[in-house]
Amino acid sequence: MAIKYELKHVCKQTGARYGILHTKHGSFETPIFMPVGTKATVKTLENSEIKEASDGLILGNTYHLWLEPGDEIVKDHGGIRGFSKWDGALLTDSGGFQVFSLSDIRKIKEEGVEFRHHKSGAKLFMSPEDSIRIQNNLGADIIMSFDECPPFNSTYEYMKESVERTLRWAKRGQIEHKNTADQALFGIVQGGPHKDLRIMCAEALKEMDFPGYSIGGLSVGESKEEMYKVLDYLKDVMPEDKPRYLMGVGTPDDIIEGVIRGMDMFDCVNPTRLARHGSAMTSLGRIPIKNQLYAKNMEPLDPNCDCKVCTTYTKSYIRHLFKSEEYLGQRLVSYHNLYFLKKLMKNIREAIKNDSLLEFRKKLYRDYYKR
Amino acid sequence: MAIKYELKHVCKQTGARYGILHTKHGSFETPIFMPVGTKATVKTLENSEIKEASDGLILGNTYHLWLEPGDEIVKDHGGIRGFSKWDGALLTDSGGFQVFSLSDIRKIKEEGVEFRHHKSGAKLFMSPEDSIRIQNNLGADIIMSFDECPPFNSTYEYMKESVERTLRWAKRGQIEHKNTADQALFGIVQGGPHKDLRIMCAEALKEMDFPGYSIGGLSVGESKEEMYKVLDYLKDVMPEDKPRYLMGVGTPDDIIEGVIRGMDMFDCVNPTRLARHGSAMTSLGRIPIKNQLYAKNMEPLDPNCDCKVCTTYTKSYIRHLFKSEEYLGQRLVSYHNLYFLKKLMKNIREAIKNDSLLEFRKKLYRDYYKR
Repeated sequence: MAIKYELKHVCKQTGARYGILHTKHGSFETPIFMPVGTKATVKTLENSEIKEASDGLILGNTYHLWLEPGDEIVKDHGGIRGFSKWDGALLTDSGGFQVFSLSDIRKIKEEGVEFRHHKSGAKLFMSPEDSIRIQNNLGADIIMSFDECPPFNSTYEYMKESVERTLRWAKRGQIEHKNTADQALFGIVQGGPHKDLRIMCAEALKEMDFPGYSIGGLSVGESKEEMYKVLDYLKDVMPEDKPRYLMGVGTPDDIIEGVIRGMDMFDCVNPTRLARHGSAMTSLGRIPIKNQLYAKNMEPLDPNCDCKVCTTYTKSYIRHLFKSEEYLGQRLVSYHNLYFLKKLMKNIREAIKNDSLLEFRKKLYRDYYKR
Repeated sequence: MAIKYELKHVCKQTGARYGILHTKHGSFETPIFMPVGTKATVKTLENSEIKEASDGLILGNTYHLWLEPGDEIVKDHGGIRGFSKWDGALLTDSGGFQVFSLSDIRKIKEEGVEFRHHKSGAKLFMSPEDSIRIQNNLGADIIMSFDECPPFNSTYEYMKESVERTLRWAKRGQIEHKNTADQALFGIVQGGPHKDLRIMCAEALKEMDFPGYSIGGLSVGESKEEMYKVLDYLKDVMPEDKPRYLMGVGTPDDIIEGVIRGMDMFDCVNPTRLARHGSAMTSLGRIPIKNQLYAKNMEPLDPNCDCKVCTTYTKSYIRHLFKSEEYLGQRLVSYHNLYFLKKLMKNIREAIKNDSLLEFRKKLYRDYYKR
């Protein structure tokens, strides 16, 4: 078994789950946030920094690494871990999301998807088997089934057809995947906003007995209420003894609402992307560090943060780096934002264990969102 | 006294100097290379990395910090060291070079220079006293006199006039500079290609008794032969008991030729700028890491380097970072290139002590330049 999930405690206030996810490269308390290292690098940071600013489980993107440098080159290094020299645990997505979100022109067939390279326009093709083979080469601890990710507002008929195909693709991926001892393949629940399709998809995947389950097709432009509703539908359907991964979710409110709805794993480019644009996530809300307001500010980014950035630099210095277009600015805020989320997840886990997650949510909404 | 220079050994083969430069923030063996941190950051790197990849003495640029964030803000942090949290030693230039190289429109008067901001076009003015006051605020261990840096091919008449003004400016700066206990003010030798002007300038500065001397107006587009000739003129004129700083020089050949002509200190953006363009300085010469040639190369950047980049990553991975426009690539090569120069300087110092600098130069020309 590549992974094992232990459910340790369920919050009496909310039903949120505290657990431990065991992998071959570390055991991780859940709920967990996983920083995204799309191209075998978490943008601007080196491994020692990622170690400090994360819990040790990060993402790589199959689509990008397949195209550049190519999964064979990554395989020659012994997988992403040998390529980037990351010695923690890893998860890869299936490439499906990028096939559907980055490429304008595509043709979905039973066999797989024909599409155009998002930059060069070159003709490409990916099948569920291709995705698994590539992910086997990339060598992450946790890998994903190849799924279709249709627009949230597709017709019911199309969504039904799509979910059924995604289930057939999940089965084909499961058959293709041989390396089950080292890599855990997750099934992905699709179905847009439709309760019956979501439940049907989840039940069918449960039948196939995956070591973990992802919720896909969310955080794709729908409202927060729509997203939370889908999670409500699924809360009691998902198996208790397997980890649940809410894909692409990374804002503090969505994370805590996901946790309350039984989710265990989260990933998003949000904290590092915000950082590169000069937006720092702090215990008192987001800060636009480029603002003139901070030109002479001698305080740290976050007065309540003990990360190396906050214990070292002033807002004034970090603002200067951004105004001067110096890379170090992006780097320092990227580190801090990931550290902020790491600490948020730790606090969420504590609140679950103390059966006080509602109070914690109230505090988060008050301090971070001023609600 | 802010600094003290001890001449420890003169190479019997070449006359090159091995010495120790004592500052309030560390003692440094010379010849030394100083990385450039223009805007209070050595581009892409953080302090812990700069510590590892340098000898601990770096540069800041007065012109840039005066304009952004402003020297008063830096002063409020306790100088550059408090602003960027660099705990090593520092040197600042006078701003003169930038006034003359970055601004197209300027008017030189006895009082100082009127010029336009290199981006906004705003009207600015800097006098020798301004430069010193700004540098006092920036708080470096070693600071520079405000000098005019005319084109190398100016007429003899203009160059003479300019050198005489630069000498008057040096005197005014010396009078303005009060903080002599903490900051050592260097005089700058100008005079273009003209032997008599260079010697006249050096002699006049010697009279003023500065704690160190810089050679300016070189590495500004003249040929290497012309540069080396100027250094030859000055070799026996410069005082033995003071450090000699060859400004803006940072290629291996210019460094070793400078050392052979009695120079002790060097700085240049070259290693970090090359790095950002994907050019790695190695014991076997420069490597264009973006080249297809390295796509599958499992070797380190430099097989003879023990830096953390070379003991960790493959050329294939670093090439991938550059091809993917990932900032980490620039960061890794910047670190390596500085480390390469640090090691080069160490080897040069060893060769001076062993009276074998000519053999070392032969080896450098053979291995690095294939000459």
